[in-house]
Amino acid sequence: MEFHFLGTGSGVPSTSRNVSGLVVRFLQKKSTQWLFDCGEATQHQILKSPITLTKIDRIFITHLHGDHLFGLPGLLCSRSAQGAKTPLTIYGPDGVETFVKTALTISKSYLSYDIHFISIDEGIIYEDDSIKVEVMGLDHVMPSFAFKLTEADQQGALKVEKLQELGIKPGPIYQRIKQGETIELPDGRIIDGNEFLHEKKQGRKVVIAGDTRPLEQMISFSESANLLIHEGTFREDKKSHAEQFGHSTITEVASIAKRANVDQLILTHISSRYAGAENELEEEVRSVLDGTIVAHDLMVYKLMNNV
Amino acid sequence: MEFHFLGTGSGVPSTSRNVSGLVVRFLQKKSTQWLFDCGEATQHQILKSPITLTKIDRIFITHLHGDHLFGLPGLLCSRSAQGAKTPLTIYGPDGVETFVKTALTISKSYLSYDIHFISIDEGIIYEDDSIKVEVMGLDHVMPSFAFKLTEADQQGALKVEKLQELGIKPGPIYQRIKQGETIELPDGRIIDGNEFLHEKKQGRKVVIAGDTRPLEQMISFSESANLLIHEGTFREDKKSHAEQFGHSTITEVASIAKRANVDQLILTHISSRYAGAENELEEEVRSVLDGTIVAHDLMVYKLMNNV
Ligand SMILES: [Zn+2]
Ligand SMILES: [Zn+2]
Repeated sequence: MEFHFLGTGSGVPSTSRNVSGLVVRFLQKKSTQWLFDCGEATQHQILKSPITLTKIDRIFITHLHGDHLFGLPGLLCSRSAQGAKTPLTIYGPDGVETFVKTALTISKSYLSYDIHFISIDEGIIYEDDSIKVEVMGLDHVMPSFAFKLTEADQQGALKVEKLQELGIKPGPIYQRIKQGETIELPDGRIIDGNEFLHEKKQGRKVVIAGDTRPLEQMISFSESANLLIHEGTFREDKKSHAEQFGHSTITEVASIAKRANVDQLILTHISSRYAGAENELEEEVRSVLDGTIVAHDLMVYKLMNNV
Repeated sequence: MEFHFLGTGSGVPSTSRNVSGLVVRFLQKKSTQWLFDCGEATQHQILKSPITLTKIDRIFITHLHGDHLFGLPGLLCSRSAQGAKTPLTIYGPDGVETFVKTALTISKSYLSYDIHFISIDEGIIYEDDSIKVEVMGLDHVMPSFAFKLTEADQQGALKVEKLQELGIKPGPIYQRIKQGETIELPDGRIIDGNEFLHEKKQGRKVVIAGDTRPLEQMISFSESANLLIHEGTFREDKKSHAEQFGHSTITEVASIAKRANVDQLILTHISSRYAGAENELEEEVRSVLDGTIVAHDLMVYKLMNNV
C-alpha cells in the first residue's frame, strides 16, 4: 500500500499545506485507489501526484467540515471529464449525498458514471476477499469517524518441494492441499494439507482517523496497527484550544499510538500556525513516540508487506 | 482599476490554468475588490496574489457551471476564518443561494459576516456615485450573463488659476462653481461656473462576459468599452465544437470586439488543449484584432484612467 498525502493542513488552505485529502493506492490490486477526505483543490493536488482520478473507485469522508468535503463536486466532475465509466462509491456521514447532489444538480453536471452513496455509522462498511473496512465514531464538534482497513490474512504458500519429494505431482490436488484438507492419495496414503503449507502471512492493519479529541477507544481500535494516520492539529501548548475545537495535540496522539502498540504513527491536519516549525513539531512528538512522522503535502509513504 | 486573472482555464483545472476567477481591484476606492466567478481553488490562487480576501465585498457569478462556482463555499469560509466582519453581496443566477446555503449548512459553517444574495436577470443590478453594473443575458447551454461596469463621468477640475486671476478667492463659492452654477459675485459680476471647469473625464467602461456563443448583442453592449474580457475557449478549427457546447472561438470574439470598437480585448477561459500553444493562439487572434491579449493565470492588467 502506498499513502499519498495530498493535503495535510487544517481548516483553511495555506501556501504550504492544502486542506485534507489522502489517497491509498493498493499496489497488488491493479492499482485500485481509494480517497479519504476531499477538501477543496484535492483534484489540483492529484494533478501534482502520480494518482489517476479515474482509478479512484471509493471515497471515504470522515466528517462534513468544509476542509474535508468541499473538493468533492469538482473532483467528481473532473473524473467524468476524463471519461471514467466505472462506478464510484462514496462512504460518509449523512449529508454527503445531499451536498453532492445539490452541487451537481445546480451546476447541471451529468456524470459519465454512477455514484453509490453509503451513509456510515459504526461497524463494517466494506469487505471483499482481500480487505475489510471498519468504522468507529470519534469525538469532534460534529459526527466524525475513523476507518480501519484490515487486509485478509494471506494463506501460506504450498511447500512444493516437499510435495514432490513424496511423489505428489501438481494437479487439482494441490488446490485441496492449499485449503488444508486431509486427503487420501490414490495409493492409499493419507496426508494433512496443513503440513505442506508455509505459515500464514498476517494481513496489514491501517487506521485513518478524522478530526477528533484524543479518544481512549482509539487504543483498542488501532491495537497493533501497522500504521495509524491521525490528526495532530496543535502542539501541547494549545491543549485547551484543541479541546475546545474538538482536536488533538500531537503528544496526546503519540501517547495513544504508543499505548496501542502501533508500528508507525503519521500525523496530519497540522495547523498553519506551525508553518516553518516542522522540525520542532517532530522533535516534540518524538519525545513521546520515536519515529513518528509529521506529514507534508505530496508526501508518499510506502507500507511494506508483513513478513 | 486592476484586473487579477486568477483562473483562465475552462471546464477542469490543469497544471497551467485554474478554472475561472477574476478580481477587479478599484485603486481609487480604498482598494475595494470585486470577484467575478469563483471556480474551485480560487481562494488558493488568491494566496498567490496580492488580493486580500477580507476586502472582497461583492461577488458576481456569470453562470452556474461548476468551474465558475464550486470554489465559493470554501472561499466564504476562509473569508470568515480571516475574521471578516463586513457584509458580502453575491450576484448570480438563481441557484447560487441554494448551493451556498446547502454547503454551509451541511458543513455547519457559521460565518462571521452577513451575505446578501441578489438573483440577476437583465438590467442594472448595482449603482453608486462612482460606478454602475449592468447585466446582459448571453447564449450558453444554461443561463449565462455578462457584466458591464460603467464608471460615472468625473466632473472636470476647477480652473483655479483663472478664478484667482479674476480675484475670486477659495471658499464655499468654489463648490457652487464646481456644480456649473451661474453665480452673482458680491461685487455684482455674474459668472458661469462652466467656464471655470476643465473638461469632464469620461468614466471607463469594462465588460466581463461569462461563457457564451458569439453574440451579436455583445457589439452594442460593449460599444467603445475600454476593456472587454471575454471567453475564447477554442481556436477556429474547433468552431462547430464551440457552437455545440455554447462557446466562442477566439477569432469570433476578436471580430465582435473589433466591430464594437473596444480598446482592449482580453481572452480567457482557454481550453487546456492549447497548453504550450499560447503564442499561436495570440498570433491567430491578432490577425483579426491587433493587440488582443490571451490571459494567463495570475496575470495582472492595469486599466489606465481616461484622459
Ligand atoms: Zn478539519
Ligand atoms: Zn466555463
